[in-house]
Amino acid sequence: MNKPSTRAEPDKRNTMNRLLAAGRQIFALKGLAGARVEDIAREAKVTKQLVYHYYGSKEVLFSTVLDDASQQIMQELIALDIDDLPPEEALRSLLHCCFDQYMKDPHLGALALEGIRFHNTPKTRSNSFTSESPALVVKFSAVLKRGMETGVFRQGIDARLLLASSALLMSGGFTNHYTMSVLVGFDTTSEDGMRIWRAHSANLILASIMQQSVRL
Amino acid sequence: MNKPSTRAEPDKRNTMNRLLAAGRQIFALKGLAGARVEDIAREAKVTKQLVYHYYGSKEVLFSTVLDDASQQIMQELIALDIDDLPPEEALRSLLHCCFDQYMKDPHLGALALEGIRFHNTPKTRSNSFTSESPALVVKFSAVLKRGMETGVFRQGIDARLLLASSALLMSGGFTNHYTMSVLVGFDTTSEDGMRIWRAHSANLILASIMQQSVRL
Repeated sequence: MNKPSTRAEPDKRNTMNRLLAAGRQIFALKGLAGARVEDIAREAKVTKQLVYHYYGSKEVLFSTVLDDASQQIMQELIALDIDDLPPEEALRSLLHCCFDQYMKDPHLGALALEGIRFHNTPKTRSNSFTSESPALVVKFSAVLKRGMETGVFRQGIDARLLLASSALLMSGGFTNHYTMSVLVGFDTTSEDGMRIWRAHSANLILASIMQQSVRL
Repeated sequence: MNKPSTRAEPDKRNTMNRLLAAGRQIFALKGLAGARVEDIAREAKVTKQLVYHYYGSKEVLFSTVLDDASQQIMQELIALDIDDLPPEEALRSLLHCCFDQYMKDPHLGALALEGIRFHNTPKTRSNSFTSESPALVVKFSAVLKRGMETGVFRQGIDARLLLASSALLMSGGFTNHYTMSVLVGFDTTSEDGMRIWRAHSANLILASIMQQSVRL
């Protein structure tokens, strides 16, 4: 209360960032149902009352954590500098970038899975994933168009279906770790496992659209 | 107690089947954390005490429901009669069969998603998915081998990686309904949406392994 008013906004922003970071970690580990607001508050070094003051409920905090994670992912993909790369390298860079986001953040797979469950209930509002996805569709389509024009990719590729399939394949070893590990026979989140899955999934997507004369 | 002992086993089996069916429905709708044993008991027309007597805990009942569902899926795939089909048709039949299991059972997508979460916790025991998967790998590999030998498929396909990717793609419109629907721009569980996703995903897998001379 006695702090100069010029510090109030950055302080609030810092607190909210700490809360989002703590929420991300605890929601990933415990799930939405299992996470306790007081554990998130303790981790972020604030009171439970402040969490409710800022977010109103655990569900809104969770939804904000998801939004924040989606936005980071989408913006990193959208900002990727690939315009000067040949189409197949540009597409491979996008696919690898998607994979690497999960690889670099050990909580992202579990958080994404919890987000999928959350959004299966019709009551949840749309989020930044919905609002950012058109820009990603535009970027993905542009790479495919360049490849089709130069004859590297076959004609008639549906960009949005291919984008969705790419997102599934690149993230599947993390979000669907148990099933995928049983089917492939190795741990898809081990160092070797990630290397194999990353290369295989990007190759599969590319092989499905390359003209054979330039086939991998 | 007064029933002839010859009826005891079939009666128990019937009761357990009703409990598995009720559990499947309620776990799919509410998730493991949200499902209540008394609701499952009521749906199955038994007492809550009997559920605990048979299964010991909600987690064991859930694990048994998952096991039962996995076993049905795996056995249907393993039993599919495809040996007389040309390799590309045989593979397409397997892929469609996987998709159609989710299409026919409106609870399967949510149940699979809940199963993935459950198995992310290291304490859970392996299940019938683990024990049945080798037979599915053998069946899938045999189709690929036939296709490679006849020159329809390219050489060097890794059967287990392709099987895992196939499972991800064929089920993704159901287990990952929200994200996939945003990316493709239609509801992946609507009648038209399922038709489009089913054809696209099977085509993508096949296109990634077909020799171009016989390309789709």
